[in-house]
Amino acid sequence: MKFSINLADLGTEIGATLKEASSSDLPISGIATLMRAGKHEVSFFTNGLYRDELAKTSAAAVILASKDERFCKVPKLVMENPYLGYAKTARLFNPPPCYPQGKHPTAWVSEEAIFDEASVSIGPQTVIEAGVKLGRNVVIGPGCVIGKGIKIGDNCQLIANVTLCTGTVLGQRVIIHPGAVIGSDGFGNANDAGKWVKVPQLGGVIIGDDVEIGANTTIDKGALEDTTIGEGVKLDNQIQIGHNVQIGEHTAIAGCVGIAGSTRIGRYCMIAGGVGIAGHLNISDYVHITGGSIVLQSIHEKGIYSSGTPLEQNRRWHRNYHRFKHLDEMAKRLQTLERRQ
Amino acid sequence: MKFSINLADLGTEIGATLKEASSSDLPISGIATLMRAGKHEVSFFTNGLYRDELAKTSAAAVILASKDERFCKVPKLVMENPYLGYAKTARLFNPPPCYPQGKHPTAWVSEEAIFDEASVSIGPQTVIEAGVKLGRNVVIGPGCVIGKGIKIGDNCQLIANVTLCTGTVLGQRVIIHPGAVIGSDGFGNANDAGKWVKVPQLGGVIIGDDVEIGANTTIDKGALEDTTIGEGVKLDNQIQIGHNVQIGEHTAIAGCVGIAGSTRIGRYCMIAGGVGIAGHLNISDYVHITGGSIVLQSIHEKGIYSSGTPLEQNRRWHRNYHRFKHLDEMAKRLQTLERRQ
Amino acid sequence: MKFSINLADLGTEIGATLKEASSSDLPISGIATLMRAGKHEVSFFTNGLYRDELAKTSAAAVILASKDERFCKVPKLVMENPYLGYAKTARLFNPPPCYPQGKHPTAWVSEEAIFDEASVSIGPQTVIEAGVKLGRNVVIGPGCVIGKGIKIGDNCQLIANVTLCTGTVLGQRVIIHPGAVIGSDGFGNANDAGKWVKVPQLGGVIIGDDVEIGANTTIDKGALEDTTIGEGVKLDNQIQIGHNVQIGEHTAIAGCVGIAGSTRIGRYCMIAGGVGIAGHLNISDYVHITGGSIVLQSIHEKGIYSSGTPLEQNRRWHRNYHRFKHLDEMAKRLQTLERRQ
Repeated sequence: MKFSINLADLGTEIGATLKEASSSDLPISGIATLMRAGKHEVSFFTNGLYRDELAKTSAAAVILASKDERFCKVPKLVMENPYLGYAKTARLFNPPPCYPQGKHPTAWVSEEAIFDEASVSIGPQTVIEAGVKLGRNVVIGPGCVIGKGIKIGDNCQLIANVTLCTGTVLGQRVIIHPGAVIGSDGFGNANDAGKWVKVPQLGGVIIGDDVEIGANTTIDKGALEDTTIGEGVKLDNQIQIGHNVQIGEHTAIAGCVGIAGSTRIGRYCMIAGGVGIAGHLNISDYVHITGGSIVLQSIHEKGIYSSGTPLEQNRRWHRNYHRFKHLDEMAKRLQTLERRQ
Repeated sequence: MKFSINLADLGTEIGATLKEASSSDLPISGIATLMRAGKHEVSFFTNGLYRDELAKTSAAAVILASKDERFCKVPKLVMENPYLGYAKTARLFNPPPCYPQGKHPTAWVSEEAIFDEASVSIGPQTVIEAGVKLGRNVVIGPGCVIGKGIKIGDNCQLIANVTLCTGTVLGQRVIIHPGAVIGSDGFGNANDAGKWVKVPQLGGVIIGDDVEIGANTTIDKGALEDTTIGEGVKLDNQIQIGHNVQIGEHTAIAGCVGIAGSTRIGRYCMIAGGVGIAGHLNISDYVHITGGSIVLQSIHEKGIYSSGTPLEQNRRWHRNYHRFKHLDEMAKRLQTLERRQ
Repeated sequence: MKFSINLADLGTEIGATLKEASSSDLPISGIATLMRAGKHEVSFFTNGLYRDELAKTSAAAVILASKDERFCKVPKLVMENPYLGYAKTARLFNPPPCYPQGKHPTAWVSEEAIFDEASVSIGPQTVIEAGVKLGRNVVIGPGCVIGKGIKIGDNCQLIANVTLCTGTVLGQRVIIHPGAVIGSDGFGNANDAGKWVKVPQLGGVIIGDDVEIGANTTIDKGALEDTTIGEGVKLDNQIQIGHNVQIGEHTAIAGCVGIAGSTRIGRYCMIAGGVGIAGHLNISDYVHITGGSIVLQSIHEKGIYSSGTPLEQNRRWHRNYHRFKHLDEMAKRLQTLERRQ
């Protein structure tokens, strides 16, 4: 039987005001997009691009901000942050799945690992080495490798094929998606007359509470001290974080970002997809960096930062592209002209 | 014994015209580069950079376009699309390998998975969860994890260490290379007074027929609806595809491309390596985007698009780089001068 | 018991001159950062950013260059390349760990694999296919997949969850970090009236001695010939190397770099993070490319190369960004003005 709740109670649950009292008893059993939501589902509106869909929706109600009420003909659940309302509603209707209790017979778990078999779930083909310590309700999915001595806090979840190398410590409620590698060696090489000598990587990786780490993301261990990911940080897929990087609390980083070694990112930052950040920099709190930007210097003030040039039709771009090589010369010629005036 | 075919029959097989009738009986047993091909191997010529090699080749024959015939002293297999001739010849001499039938004893396969043991191959250490349904002649290589309820069409091949998360559906003849992760959670977080609340990702990933997915590529499941990859799409390595992205049929995307959530890419597009595409955009059919471009706006017309600045010696670049900060000011100063004329 | 060595002997060991003879008998048991090093630990100084820490350090001694001696109040180990001194010291105090001998009971190893059980270590859940040949002292960590016929030289180490596909050959002392995929199919597709036909990838990947390959890095096999990674090359995480690429000896490449097919990189190059290099290019020896650069043409001379525009506050950037579209026109207008003078 599917979970259902009436519209008025849903409003209370998510902190929204129901604007059509006559609908308060309507049973709601899910959330869907504006175009798909049926008469017992709610939807949400947060992005102006979808105003046409809002006008046409058959949803039981729409979660939206008061400024958008007038575009909506069905009952409204009005709140300041409708995206948060969507998140809360989706969580309400989709509680996390249950996992089988204990160790799967095909997993290999060292006898020197420490955990309460009644409260953890260890998936098939997983490897847990000696000295590992798992908190309560930890779920380690199939195909994971948990290296020697790693500590994993309560309620963490490793989906599948996750690799944690020795020196990694996870806080509580950390979620790690498939293919992520935490605690691999940092890229440290000393040059000896042209040849590279490996610098042993002796630090660890400390992951705070409520961190989420995307698929195929990599976080290197520190060289001498630790790489640290602050509480509540959200990392998307295919992010690379170099050794000794520090990321402040509640910062969110989108896919394909690379952060070179020893850089510190502040708290509450938002870094869009494909950004590259050089090593040994300091990025302040509350900094937003837009997609594809390259950051070669520290950022000392909060704000929105960007780099890069516009996408153009190739022929046009080519002309501007070649002119860029002479920009300095152009600036000097302009100055010469100004002096002659 | 190695498979061999005479030159005339090879021409017929690949749709080329043999331009040296006296060689029609020559037995051919393989394809190699212009420099390496021996007297019973053919080669091909498609890239003007290799004209010297063409002149020097000892190949039994060269597959090439009629405009290049005159540069070639050995027999010619002439066709409009010699690269296609190369592909067909290489396929002819290198049929796909055979795989051991049935389930490897070290694989863990749920009793609730559905497949015909006589026609599938399941490699060592692989995990197949409950409700999975495999089509005929499916090959699941070693170390894969196939989550609950996933459907895999006939003749699909997962090379090794592939992770498919619940909600993924593969068409027929899909090839997935190692380390790829399909159906991991999209990056959805709602901000609640500075902290991030996870938005459950409830959609799936629908992969069309004849799609190929490269090593360590990641494709996220949709938030509410599905992420869809159209028929015949080819994805290289380390591509990141966000939730709810739609990619049209027969589009090819090279390595290290990132596509943010909810963007739609048209059919027959070609996206070169390292391109970044922002979220919620629309890219038309037949769009080509050149390497390293950053796409922040929709593209409504077919054509070739680019962004970025030229690579230069660091000292020169540095001067132009700093001038870019004052480009707007330069434009205004130029205008001022023009007005004074 | 922890290994310890006196300061004078440490100096001899790493090739440094001890500048405080009175401290020569001081027992040293480790290396740490300037801020953390205790009275029996040495530290090192190579980056001017940390001069304050140098002044305040309580280390037993600091490894540094003679030009920095005057900033240091504690005993000094003076040498030309203090970063190399750091590497050597860290190696001295941290010898590689020991690995369990032989094949783990949960690994699956083909009876047709060739190795000396007394000298190799094969981790849990690993797969080793037929015809694989392992040299002496090879360590294959947990969850790896080693495809048919692969040759691995003496003293190689695959940390965990590494995938090597058929056609791969590793020299001696190669280190490969988790999630790396070597020898997956190159991205080869021929267009047949809009649809893509897969080009079989028939080459291999040849990895030289002393190469290190980072987490989730991918190296494709060649189309007809081999992809080759020269001796002593160091590759960081999440690098993508296309088919038929050749990388010269002792080149170092940082994270998130993508190199498209058939490009040749010279020897002793340094390529910083996030660089993208197009296909079929030639990059000379001793070329340095700075972070985030896009390389669309060959580089024929050694030197430092860069591309890209500066990061700016979004509002300022936006103005310059739009002006870039008219750069060619601006150049022409400037020329017109000059002619009128």
